[in-house]
Amino acid sequence: MKAKVFVALKRTVLDPQGQTIHGALKRMQYTGVSEVRQGKYFELTLQDDLDAGAARRQVERIASEVLTNPVIEEFTYRLEE
Amino acid sequence: MKAKVFVALKRTVLDPQGQTIHGALKRMQYTGVSEVRQGKYFELTLQDDLDAGAARRQVERIASEVLTNPVIEEFTYRLEE
Repeated sequence: MKAKVFVALKRTVLDPQGQTIHGALKRMQYTGVSEVRQGKYFELTLQDDLDAGAARRQVERIASEVLTNPVIEEFTYRLEE
Repeated sequence: MKAKVFVALKRTVLDPQGQTIHGALKRMQYTGVSEVRQGKYFELTLQDDLDAGAARRQVERIASEVLTNPVIEEFTYRLEE
């Protein structure tokens, strides 16, 4: 089983890296984009003997305690076979 | 419309950052994880006057020309209302 964890800055936190990318896109004539925000993406391969409930608990703990800075970031995740 | 773009290292490319996180997880007694790979995640907010086809073309060009280093990385994306 795999877990895909997406970590992004909270909406209220300024994202200068995303703004820089957005500025570059505008200079390159990509006019259809009105905002860019950058985050991180983690793919965790889980051991096969974990059931879905245990996997969910473990991924939530890892995401909140290790992968995310809860002051400025938030995460979502998805389990896949 | 929003586009979520996920950029990850190709499978054949070593991911020392992911290995470091995996090592940290093992030391912290998270035993259910057998591999970690880290990537990037971009959320593009698209202008409302783009139809789905144009959005798809634009996002694919941005992802392949700006957000991804095609030598070592590959991307997937998803459009959301």
